[in-house]
Amino acid sequence: MSAPHRILHPDLRARVMSPEDAAGLIASGTTIGMSGFTGSGYPKRVPLALAQRIEAEHAAGRPFRVRIWTGASTGPELDGALARADGVEYRLPYNSDPIAREKINAGRMHYVDMHLSQVAPMAWQGFLGPLDTALIEVSGITEDGALIPSTSIGNNKTWLERAGQVILEVNRWQSEALSGMHDIYYGTALPPDRVPIPLVRPGQRIGQPTLRCDPDRIVAIVETDAPDRNQPFAAPDGVAEAIAGHLLDFLRDEVRRGRLPPSLLPLQSGVGNVTNAVLAGLLEAPFEGLTAYTEVIQDGMLDLLESGKLSVASATAFSLSPEAADRFNAQAERFRDRLILRPQEISNHPELVRRLGCLAMNGLIEADIYGNVNSTHVMGSRIQNGIGGSGDFARNAYVSIFMTPSTAKGGAISAIVPKVSHVDHIAQDVQVLVTEQGLADLRGLAPRQRALAIIEKCAHPDFRPALADYVARAESGSFGGHAPTLLDEALSWHARFVRTGSMRP
Amino acid sequence: MSAPHRILHPDLRARVMSPEDAAGLIASGTTIGMSGFTGSGYPKRVPLALAQRIEAEHAAGRPFRVRIWTGASTGPELDGALARADGVEYRLPYNSDPIAREKINAGRMHYVDMHLSQVAPMAWQGFLGPLDTALIEVSGITEDGALIPSTSIGNNKTWLERAGQVILEVNRWQSEALSGMHDIYYGTALPPDRVPIPLVRPGQRIGQPTLRCDPDRIVAIVETDAPDRNQPFAAPDGVAEAIAGHLLDFLRDEVRRGRLPPSLLPLQSGVGNVTNAVLAGLLEAPFEGLTAYTEVIQDGMLDLLESGKLSVASATAFSLSPEAADRFNAQAERFRDRLILRPQEISNHPELVRRLGCLAMNGLIEADIYGNVNSTHVMGSRIQNGIGGSGDFARNAYVSIFMTPSTAKGGAISAIVPKVSHVDHIAQDVQVLVTEQGLADLRGLAPRQRALAIIEKCAHPDFRPALADYVARAESGSFGGHAPTLLDEALSWHARFVRTGSMRP
Ligand SMILES: CC(C)(COP(=O)(O)OP(=O)(O)OC[C@H]1O[C@@H](n2cnc3c(N)ncnc32)[C@H](O)[C@@H]1OP(=O)(O)O)[C@@H](O)C(=O)NCCC(=O)NCCS
Ligand SMILES: CC(C)(COP(=O)(O)OP(=O)(O)OC[C@H]1O[C@@H](n2cnc3c(N)ncnc32)[C@H](O)[C@@H]1OP(=O)(O)O)[C@@H](O)C(=O)NCCC(=O)NCCS
Repeated sequence: MSAPHRILHPDLRARVMSPEDAAGLIASGTTIGMSGFTGSGYPKRVPLALAQRIEAEHAAGRPFRVRIWTGASTGPELDGALARADGVEYRLPYNSDPIAREKINAGRMHYVDMHLSQVAPMAWQGFLGPLDTALIEVSGITEDGALIPSTSIGNNKTWLERAGQVILEVNRWQSEALSGMHDIYYGTALPPDRVPIPLVRPGQRIGQPTLRCDPDRIVAIVETDAPDRNQPFAAPDGVAEAIAGHLLDFLRDEVRRGRLPPSLLPLQSGVGNVTNAVLAGLLEAPFEGLTAYTEVIQDGMLDLLESGKLSVASATAFSLSPEAADRFNAQAERFRDRLILRPQEISNHPELVRRLGCLAMNGLIEADIYGNVNSTHVMGSRIQNGIGGSGDFARNAYVSIFMTPSTAKGGAISAIVPKVSHVDHIAQDVQVLVTEQGLADLRGLAPRQRALAIIEKCAHPDFRPALADYVARAESGSFGGHAPTLLDEALSWHARFVRTGSMRP
Repeated sequence: MSAPHRILHPDLRARVMSPEDAAGLIASGTTIGMSGFTGSGYPKRVPLALAQRIEAEHAAGRPFRVRIWTGASTGPELDGALARADGVEYRLPYNSDPIAREKINAGRMHYVDMHLSQVAPMAWQGFLGPLDTALIEVSGITEDGALIPSTSIGNNKTWLERAGQVILEVNRWQSEALSGMHDIYYGTALPPDRVPIPLVRPGQRIGQPTLRCDPDRIVAIVETDAPDRNQPFAAPDGVAEAIAGHLLDFLRDEVRRGRLPPSLLPLQSGVGNVTNAVLAGLLEAPFEGLTAYTEVIQDGMLDLLESGKLSVASATAFSLSPEAADRFNAQAERFRDRLILRPQEISNHPELVRRLGCLAMNGLIEADIYGNVNSTHVMGSRIQNGIGGSGDFARNAYVSIFMTPSTAKGGAISAIVPKVSHVDHIAQDVQVLVTEQGLADLRGLAPRQRALAIIEKCAHPDFRPALADYVARAESGSFGGHAPTLLDEALSWHARFVRTGSMRP
């Protein structure tokens, strides 16, 4: 672990230490801004050492908990280890770790689920409190002390600027060809000094390839060669393929009607099964010269880049399966000028999403008959992951598309309900809803028109009659007739599931 | 009515006709894009004549209904008259007319409640269907056919560009000094051709003072001298003053902590009693050199401009009481270089609201213990007005503030409920909540922390015990513990109100 070639700055080489020693620089009750976005670019050794230290403190009867800010989700060595150690008092802005999820839903960990574009500005505005330590994975340090980012940027720029002390993990597992792939924009400011962000094309570079940090503030450097850990790729199933099919038909039709250019508009897509099916479908579809302006580069994006269909992709992180990560690392040079990683403040910036006119494609937990979407809270109370960047994209997209299988839990749950049990995306921000049953184009429709379209096109046939019956009775039994609602019944499907394990009557 | 001095273009003078003749140019089933934003700058004679024509057609047993797009709300001669005639099939994007509201809530009129910043882009994108007629009030026409806008801009630029035919109302009641007060930005485009909007200060002019329209497309001009009709000003009551007091304390404190500059940041404020109390409070408060970047200029803004506390205000419309409108008209020259009216696409643009860092201050119907806000749907189903620009501002504001009395309907209703019956603003977009009881600063708080703060600071003492009891029982009886919720009870306060006329047990 001592090969020094990734740390070219001589003074900084002297600050290399063990993860245990570095973890020792972090005090209980303090706030740590970590790198990490999906299972990419998060620190892998210091959080593990910190978790061990916390366990030892707890075993000795001493309290020890920290507050964790990140880019988004991270990996098991960070969120998993610290949550298992009961070491996290407070966490923002996004989590998908199962152990942390259990702690949050057990009421043992405060979790603030934020719009990902707003984390850096709010930290700057001083609204989140002080930041004590930045703990950032980088892929190298240049001779003059510039930091070469790793496989995610997230909020690293802001953590490095705001933290009292900085700890780095230099990860030699990361490809050296990452160098030059990043674009760090240093032009943000607090109002009244904000200026237009000069980006007008997804592939444009507006910043510099490295992160700045005064070497004097770096108190520790830890070397590692631990791999990123993202989910393995699941081949699309029939349901995902059917959803993708409806969506691709819609896109073709929009082009035919002249409402979308033949090369579409910059694609934004969440991760997962359904999205990968859409990206796979685009491999075969008649669109050329595609671009992506999105949060993460997943497997399907890499395929599209390789095929030449996708000319350029901008994101804040990779989210590649182990297989795709190996493929990327083996030929990173090839992708270097067609992939750009930016701070999440820029990848998700409302100004840019609106200007570029992104086609936003995201998943959901449930939608209701009026087109409100719940992306986060199962049965209204149990957090799944978080809103992530979906609000940044959905509200500002050219077309905001949400996709889901029409049922969950083996058919016991309808993804289309009378009323969502929690709202992340209001009906105004949901223009197209797609399930394997079909696609509802909600643009310009009033609530009662939306209900008809969603039940007919998107609901599973098993649940359609009950939904139609609800609407019919709500038409007469509702307090107001704009969005007819039966207050006693609106959440009864969820209550039934909690009682019986099924929404079916 | 024939004084021609407001129509200087010779050919256009020949197109002056009666409102009845102009209304005759509008066919049933077509879509009309009207001017109008609050009770300002809406056409006043042709809609009335159209309503009469519709009534006559209906009396003769012939169907006749139209589709109406506007800037926002309008006046009784437009929305009231057409709704009373049962002449409106479809209406967007905002309404506050009581007769139209009844028709919508009776299920007899489709209403699409939209983010006001998105109307023009969506019309351009072709998502709302074709626009047949633009019917626009102007305050004059220059020799070369340029249109001098009236007291609101709204979507006029877009309606003039997109409509098949144009009908103008030239209103001599409007001050001639309006000329030069408007700033029409012609730099918008469809993606991929959008560029940064070059505005960095509320008072900056980035466009031209008049609206363009090819004279050949103008099929009729009607002259009028009918006044705008906005609500008379209600003097702030004790509740409004208490809310304003809490908010002003908060702003002072933010300045003291260095989180806001001493001249604050551009103010955005909704209209109404509470907002006027806040603006009145600012007259006495120790802030100088204020600016406003908002939707409408209401009475309190005029007072602040007169006092010199407010240096400049940008909006898309006036919303002045008759008394204040007279005051404005009498001395409009004085205000000309400190007031700017812009298209609503610009006044509410997410890019600009985020860049300028607006302090958003809006009203609400109800908020829940987790900080979700309902601005629109009474008891989840009955539309009050619409989301208007509140979403444009709340999501992109520097600080998003919502204000309300803690009770409604003489104390029968708690404005703080276990779960809102409809969501317009998700908790992420609600940073500060104020009632006459106090102010809850929700920044950086997780859901269970937010519940404590909101119940303690904002709820009315009569409802506090029941809310605290709900939270305590939800902690143990909820499916998930992130945002504890009792599904059977969450909407029971609303159901009780509908049954008994009171939320009290
Ligand atoms: C909504 C979201 C969780 C769906 O992701 P996905 O991978 O397609 O989801 P899955 O179908 O695997 O569902 C995840 C879990 O929720 C459950 N679920 C899905 N729909 C459900 C429903 N209607 N009711 C209850 N549970 C449901 C699944 O059963 C699964 O549970 P399990 O983990 O116990 O098996 C995911 O898209 C997300 O986190 N979105 C918010 C953030 C976001 O949109 N980011 C995009 C980038 S900007
Ligand atoms: C929410 C909103 C209606 C509040 O406006 P306001 O003038 O302060 O409201 P009022 O207190 O007069 O209430 C309006 C009506 O709603 C009723 N109401 C208010 N709170 C209520 C509650 N919690 N439950 C039921 N009804 C309620 C009032 O009783 C009143 O009814 P009435 O007309 O039958 O008397 C208004 O701010 C709005 O329309 N907001 C959305 C658009 C927006 O925010 N625009 C801002 C510019 S961007």
